[in-house]
Amino acid sequence: MTNLHEVSFLGFDVFGTVVDWRSGVARAAAPFLQRHGLNVDPLDFADQWRGLYQPSMQRVRSGERPFVTLDVLNRENLESVLARHDADFGGITNAELVDLNKAWERLDPWPDSVTALTRLKGKFSIGALSNGHIAGMLNLAKFGGLPWDVILGAEIAGTYKPQPQTYLKSAKAVGLAPAQIAMVAAHNSDLAAASAIGLKTVFVRRPTEHGPGQTSDLKAEQDWDVIVDSLTEAADALGC
Amino acid sequence: MTNLHEVSFLGFDVFGTVVDWRSGVARAAAPFLQRHGLNVDPLDFADQWRGLYQPSMQRVRSGERPFVTLDVLNRENLESVLARHDADFGGITNAELVDLNKAWERLDPWPDSVTALTRLKGKFSIGALSNGHIAGMLNLAKFGGLPWDVILGAEIAGTYKPQPQTYLKSAKAVGLAPAQIAMVAAHNSDLAAASAIGLKTVFVRRPTEHGPGQTSDLKAEQDWDVIVDSLTEAADALGC
Repeated sequence: MTNLHEVSFLGFDVFGTVVDWRSGVARAAAPFLQRHGLNVDPLDFADQWRGLYQPSMQRVRSGERPFVTLDVLNRENLESVLARHDADFGGITNAELVDLNKAWERLDPWPDSVTALTRLKGKFSIGALSNGHIAGMLNLAKFGGLPWDVILGAEIAGTYKPQPQTYLKSAKAVGLAPAQIAMVAAHNSDLAAASAIGLKTVFVRRPTEHGPGQTSDLKAEQDWDVIVDSLTEAADALGC
Repeated sequence: MTNLHEVSFLGFDVFGTVVDWRSGVARAAAPFLQRHGLNVDPLDFADQWRGLYQPSMQRVRSGERPFVTLDVLNRENLESVLARHDADFGGITNAELVDLNKAWERLDPWPDSVTALTRLKGKFSIGALSNGHIAGMLNLAKFGGLPWDVILGAEIAGTYKPQPQTYLKSAKAVGLAPAQIAMVAAHNSDLAAASAIGLKTVFVRRPTEHGPGQTSDLKAEQDWDVIVDSLTEAADALGC
């Protein structure tokens, strides 16, 4: 990995790369959907909720609305999806929505994540470089045992990936030049944005993030510095 | 600890409470002082450098200057102390000053810190709630093995303790109300400010932070929620 010899910090995408959001959100949604007589498959519900993620962040990226943290967007998106299914909001308490929204803070790591992150942490500083907010990333780490050294990303930067400022302000926060940081992600778009401003790149294939019928990010679309099938392989490749 | 039953997050002062800045700064300064023929005891030099810490932050707190991170203040203060000793700046490289300034990122934890923090981390979320900057706190954690879940404090808040916003914005970042957070510090002034806005308080006596002749913070000056002589005792008192 000679082209990574300057790297001392690994910044991780989290949703999809380190944790399995789809199963976890479906698990949390299932009893809620049943309780309120909503006839939708929990995995489909998770996909639909997640489907509003990028458009809602885009309104922040474009400047159409000021930065708000991801829990705020997720809550709005939850209500949108429920409305689409003609949910009876009169029968749903705010406490239930708050709790369901916290599904995003109670997601299982992929089976390789914790052990591999622990190995990587021995050689590098490691941090979440996610669009999640600090509290969500903290709670997710406590839930799943993710051993972050630091939590960076959207809330530190005041904007969302793939805006360059998200990577640049995260780099500045840890006192490093972009070339001293590798972005680790299962999404080619994330790596493309990071690479464009000088970060190194580690692509981790997560072909079931979106379920068995996934069509996106099934392979590396550019010549990333490291291309692997798990964080375990990333740790191997990075000499940990 | 019935009055702490709501607490789920412990925010730690770091310099003096968790790490021994005086010995570490003196250790780094000694060869520099000798190399440049500066006839000052390294421990005195550390004290003098640290002596400019509060006044330099005060200029930020008062609004006299915009927020800058602590490494910037420490560097300015280093040059001030060197000037006081008639250092020949023509013979000192910038790289030497950069390196010496990083002494604040290479400080030994007090002997009890790492084990006790690890115990506390099993029951609570734990984070640096320091006037240090994120990179400095990260590097200090890697140097000494401090197992933070998250790094909060001055850079998150854009101001310095004991300004209320430092605690309040740190609390907001972890999604908690002030009463759900306990401030852990060896400094009565830090706890007084935290307590005034509703945080719980843990006083840890560190009677040699300033060396054998220390005159400040030798005892709890108010009825803090927990008053102990080490972080080990704090872990005991908090049922960890």
